[in-house]
Amino acid sequence: MSLTAEIIAVGDELLRGSITNTNAQAISQALASLGIDVRWHTVVGDHPVPLKDVLAVARSRADILITTGGLGPTYDDLTKQTVAEAFDKQLVFHPDILEGIRAFYKASLHMDMPDNNRQQAELPEGCVIFDNPMGTAPGCAFETGGTHVLMLPGPPTEMLPMLIHHAVPYLSRLTDSVSVSHDIMTFGMGESSVDALLHEKLTYTENPVIATYAKPAEVRIRVTACGKTVQAAEALAAPITAQIRAALGRFVYGVDVPSLEAQCLALLKDKGLSFAAAESCTGGQVAQRITALPGSSTVFRGGVVSYWSSVKADVLGVPQHLLTEYGAVSDPVARAMAEGVRRITGADLAVSVTGVAGPDRDERGNEVGLVYIGLATPDGVFCRKMQVGRQQRERIQALASNHAYDLIRRHLTGLPL
Amino acid sequence: MSLTAEIIAVGDELLRGSITNTNAQAISQALASLGIDVRWHTVVGDHPVPLKDVLAVARSRADILITTGGLGPTYDDLTKQTVAEAFDKQLVFHPDILEGIRAFYKASLHMDMPDNNRQQAELPEGCVIFDNPMGTAPGCAFETGGTHVLMLPGPPTEMLPMLIHHAVPYLSRLTDSVSVSHDIMTFGMGESSVDALLHEKLTYTENPVIATYAKPAEVRIRVTACGKTVQAAEALAAPITAQIRAALGRFVYGVDVPSLEAQCLALLKDKGLSFAAAESCTGGQVAQRITALPGSSTVFRGGVVSYWSSVKADVLGVPQHLLTEYGAVSDPVARAMAEGVRRITGADLAVSVTGVAGPDRDERGNEVGLVYIGLATPDGVFCRKMQVGRQQRERIQALASNHAYDLIRRHLTGLPL
Repeated sequence: MSLTAEIIAVGDELLRGSITNTNAQAISQALASLGIDVRWHTVVGDHPVPLKDVLAVARSRADILITTGGLGPTYDDLTKQTVAEAFDKQLVFHPDILEGIRAFYKASLHMDMPDNNRQQAELPEGCVIFDNPMGTAPGCAFETGGTHVLMLPGPPTEMLPMLIHHAVPYLSRLTDSVSVSHDIMTFGMGESSVDALLHEKLTYTENPVIATYAKPAEVRIRVTACGKTVQAAEALAAPITAQIRAALGRFVYGVDVPSLEAQCLALLKDKGLSFAAAESCTGGQVAQRITALPGSSTVFRGGVVSYWSSVKADVLGVPQHLLTEYGAVSDPVARAMAEGVRRITGADLAVSVTGVAGPDRDERGNEVGLVYIGLATPDGVFCRKMQVGRQQRERIQALASNHAYDLIRRHLTGLPL
Repeated sequence: MSLTAEIIAVGDELLRGSITNTNAQAISQALASLGIDVRWHTVVGDHPVPLKDVLAVARSRADILITTGGLGPTYDDLTKQTVAEAFDKQLVFHPDILEGIRAFYKASLHMDMPDNNRQQAELPEGCVIFDNPMGTAPGCAFETGGTHVLMLPGPPTEMLPMLIHHAVPYLSRLTDSVSVSHDIMTFGMGESSVDALLHEKLTYTENPVIATYAKPAEVRIRVTACGKTVQAAEALAAPITAQIRAALGRFVYGVDVPSLEAQCLALLKDKGLSFAAAESCTGGQVAQRITALPGSSTVFRGGVVSYWSSVKADVLGVPQHLLTEYGAVSDPVARAMAEGVRRITGADLAVSVTGVAGPDRDERGNEVGLVYIGLATPDGVFCRKMQVGRQQRERIQALASNHAYDLIRRHLTGLPL
């Protein structure tokens, strides 16, 4: 019998619809990997009475209660006090935690700690303390009458590290089964095609579980296996992972790689090559995605966001006659942009993106969704033309930058462009 | 007394963390605008027993229950049967609905309707039917013993139109109050300082409600007021909104504006000025944020991501002696980058960002979190130095690009830089 869990998010902002409960999703994934059965998600407001009622219901049905939110320094942050009361625990003041919060204010926020942060240094008696390097509110866990209660902060930037570094190790001691997951990352096939192909080639079982997740032009296939040991779980996962790789062939860009750009960064590092980008309709997204990764400075020299045609001509050196004759969104201009940015940065490889992200057609009447991706290499220049369809601006930009990285990946791994 | 509501999502895929419960957010927003008080979100799996338990709890505490999911044709779609049983309603077969589903299969899916879709044409006796032009599962609503129960489909593409065209009109007949919200957007003060200041200067009441939400260096204060009419609600919200603006002064960058960059875009458009960016540690994020907005091409000329020093020198024309003497992360280089990108793009204003995003110190030993932001204008060049602290790369980049937009906003509104 696996342990059951309820995730309780505390916050009026969730009930008003100001934010989505992404924390519940992240915690659910983590608990699934531990073989813990998440049976309920609950969201309740920043008020002690309804929170107490929710805690009583949760306690009656789940082995593990995980709260998020309401640990901050403000007046409506009431989770800790309410949980302590509901479970008959005293709050104990920890002077060392208060000093830590004071130091965080000094070092990270360059200001003196306001008095109302004091309540953050109070925690239920006998709890395990989860420290919070990303913010001021520590989390904690305690067990009482067979129920485990974990309190985590609300902001995902604080909750996620605490989940991984504290909550998961705490919970893994409660369960005797472990699970492992592997992500097979693909680019260029639709989700329903992937799904149909896998259902044709594989036998689906309860363990490992195969699940597919879609992003623009990307599909991630997750294989999750449970076993008594990591080795046992891995032994179950391995043949299925291999079958999926074989079925999807060149559409697979990696296994357990976080993203296309991370895969490109690794490939470029391996080969000792540098890279640059010239962007029009993606507006800096190609550059931003690789520079979000630590270590990108070894391979990414830089880029130009040539939003106006004058910048394409003056900075990238795109010949004026190409802009006049073919327009900014065209095969010859995409090629000239890639060559231009390669030349001025001295990079080994360069990509370019020019297209119509919308909401309107461009001045030449090119349709929304038309995108050209250029690739300049020591051996010549290539251009991929795409019509991704009349979609939202954000999605067109994401698709276009994905295709730019796909082109680099294919070039570096010797696949047809 | 406003009506209370609980939103119940049915689906194992939510509990496994495969998807986020975006439906709850959309429904919460719609209900808030009707003055209905959403007090609980619940997620439960595709199993009749726990769903029945959840329905019993919800019925005991809320006036309105809205379910999403579990209306499909497959064997684990059990919402309708379970709700009907829980509320003692017979399911009635509607031949006309079955014909509609059959026609949908022909027209939209180009196939014959499978037999298991028949159950989708069964609905609780006496309900109001919500038709579903985007899919096969109709939704419905009924009232029993003072409780209103609405059932909506799970896929957001089907749920959202049904929410807007059927659920909202149904619910608006139950309530005689409406609510309005205004967001006061601030930059540069921490959440606890904002909170302490507002508690000092304002009297907090039940209506309007004041809530604060934090992002890197940004705090949003939302004022929500309820009234019999929009005018009455606005009349309640207006003085509080004005008091908050006055209390927070120059930290307020706008009201009901989505972001700092959107405010800058509006200000630049108003003044007919163009803008460019030279980025090192933000790696294209300043450019990407403004180009994510429709209409940015009227003001944003372009930018340079000068990640390597050679690109700072060769493309932006930063004098080599400044790079040698002061290093890439320095006040003189930030100024030269801003001037350089302003010169080569011909923009009216230009910002630059150079800093250490981490995870390691730079080769000169500058600490992670040290950032210089330059601003070049027709009247001269300015530079802001910041030490945002040893934080995650992602957060340092977000903070730095926020500060770049803050500098533009301050310059355009005549505030001290």
